[in-house]
Amino acid sequence: MTDDVTQRVADWWATSVSRVEPGVIELRGLPIQELLGGTSLTEAAWLLLRGERPTARQVQLLDAALVGSVDHGPHAPSIAVARMAATCGVGLNNAIASGVNVMGDVHGGAGQQCLELYSELLDGAGDDPDLTAATRATVARWRERSKYLPGFGHRFHPRDPRRDPLLGLVRRAVDDGVVEGRFLAAGLAVEAAIAPVPMNIDGATAVIYGELGFPAPLARGLFVLGRTVGVLAHAWEEMREGRRIKGPIPPEIRPTYRP
Amino acid sequence: MTDDVTQRVADWWATSVSRVEPGVIELRGLPIQELLGGTSLTEAAWLLLRGERPTARQVQLLDAALVGSVDHGPHAPSIAVARMAATCGVGLNNAIASGVNVMGDVHGGAGQQCLELYSELLDGAGDDPDLTAATRATVARWRERSKYLPGFGHRFHPRDPRRDPLLGLVRRAVDDGVVEGRFLAAGLAVEAAIAPVPMNIDGATAVIYGELGFPAPLARGLFVLGRTVGVLAHAWEEMREGRRIKGPIPPEIRPTYRP
Amino acid sequence: MTDDVTQRVADWWATSVSRVEPGVIELRGLPIQELLGGTSLTEAAWLLLRGERPTARQVQLLDAALVGSVDHGPHAPSIAVARMAATCGVGLNNAIASGVNVMGDVHGGAGQQCLELYSELLDGAGDDPDLTAATRATVARWRERSKYLPGFGHRFHPRDPRRDPLLGLVRRAVDDGVVEGRFLAAGLAVEAAIAPVPMNIDGATAVIYGELGFPAPLARGLFVLGRTVGVLAHAWEEMREGRRIKGPIPPEIRPTYRP
Amino acid sequence: MTDDVTQRVADWWATSVSRVEPGVIELRGLPIQELLGGTSLTEAAWLLLRGERPTARQVQLLDAALVGSVDHGPHAPSIAVARMAATCGVGLNNAIASGVNVMGDVHGGAGQQCLELYSELLDGAGDDPDLTAATRATVARWRERSKYLPGFGHRFHPRDPRRDPLLGLVRRAVDDGVVEGRFLAAGLAVEAAIAPVPMNIDGATAVIYGELGFPAPLARGLFVLGRTVGVLAHAWEEMREGRRIKGPIPPEIRPTYRP
Repeated sequence: MTDDVTQRVADWWATSVSRVEPGVIELRGLPIQELLGGTSLTEAAWLLLRGERPTARQVQLLDAALVGSVDHGPHAPSIAVARMAATCGVGLNNAIASGVNVMGDVHGGAGQQCLELYSELLDGAGDDPDLTAATRATVARWRERSKYLPGFGHRFHPRDPRRDPLLGLVRRAVDDGVVEGRFLAAGLAVEAAIAPVPMNIDGATAVIYGELGFPAPLARGLFVLGRTVGVLAHAWEEMREGRRIKGPIPPEIRPTYRP
Repeated sequence: MTDDVTQRVADWWATSVSRVEPGVIELRGLPIQELLGGTSLTEAAWLLLRGERPTARQVQLLDAALVGSVDHGPHAPSIAVARMAATCGVGLNNAIASGVNVMGDVHGGAGQQCLELYSELLDGAGDDPDLTAATRATVARWRERSKYLPGFGHRFHPRDPRRDPLLGLVRRAVDDGVVEGRFLAAGLAVEAAIAPVPMNIDGATAVIYGELGFPAPLARGLFVLGRTVGVLAHAWEEMREGRRIKGPIPPEIRPTYRP
Repeated sequence: MTDDVTQRVADWWATSVSRVEPGVIELRGLPIQELLGGTSLTEAAWLLLRGERPTARQVQLLDAALVGSVDHGPHAPSIAVARMAATCGVGLNNAIASGVNVMGDVHGGAGQQCLELYSELLDGAGDDPDLTAATRATVARWRERSKYLPGFGHRFHPRDPRRDPLLGLVRRAVDDGVVEGRFLAAGLAVEAAIAPVPMNIDGATAVIYGELGFPAPLARGLFVLGRTVGVLAHAWEEMREGRRIKGPIPPEIRPTYRP
Repeated sequence: MTDDVTQRVADWWATSVSRVEPGVIELRGLPIQELLGGTSLTEAAWLLLRGERPTARQVQLLDAALVGSVDHGPHAPSIAVARMAATCGVGLNNAIASGVNVMGDVHGGAGQQCLELYSELLDGAGDDPDLTAATRATVARWRERSKYLPGFGHRFHPRDPRRDPLLGLVRRAVDDGVVEGRFLAAGLAVEAAIAPVPMNIDGATAVIYGELGFPAPLARGLFVLGRTVGVLAHAWEEMREGRRIKGPIPPEIRPTYRP
């Protein structure tokens, strides 16, 4: 009888990610000591999310997507919010959490939405290697909702400097049989269909996440992981400088009052 | 005159981490495209935090510390809170932020405190290679505040399975001249002084962070980065399962009311 | 020219909520000193959200909705998460933020969704005082999406003890000409249509928010305000007791591992 | 045996704040239905924090302190962060949590520190009605740590417009025997000792919280509750306007890069 209650409580928190017993920590069935020394943080992320170890070439692609996301400038709310938080007398973890918390549908969700777009396009194409019709139909459907397609165009960069190197890596991976290339084809097909608007970082990382087999919501989850690096670096810089209570603009400029 | 105001506003958000112009993203002075393909997320973290690239052996040590921190089981509040959040209808980023937010002084701060302990010990020893006296004095001072030393002992593991592999990596790095070995010596000196209480994961990662030259607050910052991987994996598992509003215990057990 | 930049920066943060000059703080055009002494927090909330002062009877209804939301027990993730956070060495504000952060679409959004349901029903009815047809149509449409209607039924309470007193207050307010009664009629019409499932707290507070003229998203915003009181009280209790790192279940029960 | 496990799990989440059974919600022993109609949110906060109902005059003082804290302008990080969050595609609750999360030791902690200062002064004075010596000693001790005393002086307002009305309310409450007046005396004694630096909002609310018998950490907790109103109003204004991804400054001004 005791066992029944204990079991129900234990089951309430059941998980396939980790198992812990006195002296034992296993991640996805692997003793943690086997992961210390030859495993990178990115490999550990793949293992914990998918339950198996990645190959070196898969890791290279994932790292490129993550590194491409660490920081795109101090204007980003995730960065700015973390910096302001760091000056308010909270812990470094709280400052990071404040930055992560604003990576919402609009600020952190474009990669996820773009991967959904690609997936819908590829589902539409089915076995047909020619994506033209499926691209036209998918783009039209998405444009009914918004003239902006997630993953394409940038309000700041005429051409995102991360597009070419990321797509180049994917192309080489396709050539070497590491990935299939269907998401790359989908991304290029959309880009061609809406020319001259170029693919941006979210469109390029969505190609990578799709090729690697990650479901769309993890495009956001992995963006968060990558961006945490930039958030940490900016929050730490601000904390080290010791400024107190940083508002959004210099205090001598008073926000306009609009009754 | 315009330039003065513009400059003041631009300076208000000045940073040495990243520079962005149309078509340009530079991280610590390096064009981001140079980092896409041959740079891991861990290397990018080092670059953004310190302004220079690490060596391969430095990266191996940092990765080991980060991987050792990703997850030590579903009892950890950072993990449990993120899982509960994931069932409440918030974004994956909000669930991760909820987990990161609880990595406070007590849950995420032991590595930082332990690195402060080691640093104090090494400052006390100065040039003296014999750490005995400095260890005795430092341990005594810290024990006045609390009988528990941060980084040593564990309420759950008789011996933390991560201690030996992590210290082994540091020892090899010392042998190969990658790091100096002073923080390793400090950690072992404390462990010997308070035997039989063994070093735990926080004590071992503090050795690594100290050897690599990270200041104490970044021991917490880097713990947050590593643990974000585990938080993401657990939150995603919970979100995928689709459970709604997960309380802390099965609903048929009612928390005790203590007037 | 200077003025142009200054103006653009000032306009970037323009707001109609508050104006601040040296020695002056105005909230919605009222000097703050006029609000100190005769104004309750609830009245201030109304003023800041709507730009005008409420009547005493409006405040009574709003207070009832807010007080009805402060706490419905320690099983709620908002409460449990804040308690866990409070034991991790973060500030009391961080513990409260952790609790607020999980009041998402599922945990804090039912009031908002229910107010949308009522509004859709009333829009459908137009000038017709007989809500029967509009209710049938609206309930049918919502049930296509989910068999559960937001604001009705409870997995725990056979009949929510807050329903009757809240609806009684609204009825008296209708009788006295304080509110029109259309949202009360809508709520009762839905309840009759899906009998015997009774209205719950979210359905009853949505009636109040609707009668008072709040838009649906503020049903969630005001729920957050009310619940902050319960979150604060629970986090403070936990902090005062001084427990360290409270996991979700007693440590001797190990979560089930499900490979 | 079953009961033992169940009991341990139930005790793990024991609380004196609320009790819930099917059909029953009790807050501090009172059925919630008794609180709906004649109880304000502020009264509910008092009840949940202290376990008993306040008098009308106590509520008036508490409301004044809370209303004085709702908003002191759009420069405050709590307000600005919540506004930025609201434009990033997160829930209104997440935007509020982001604002609450930055009310740390520096941004939200001055009231708490000031109440500690007053308490230390009054402890030093003991039964002596003349606070001169205790004030001199306490101020000297605090000034060793920092030349700024929490609760006094303001970088923006030459004289905080909230000081006089709040202290006036306390004085009337002292005259009417509602509170003792010791914390008012302490605050005025400090103000006289460091003239001409005037008491600010944190110093005035600390007087109120002290007179009402709240422990120092709740000065921060109650500040958070009050400020949540302003955070909600600003986040809602921003959300309603529908702007997307609001950075800290207009995008045409690029933050300075300082290598």
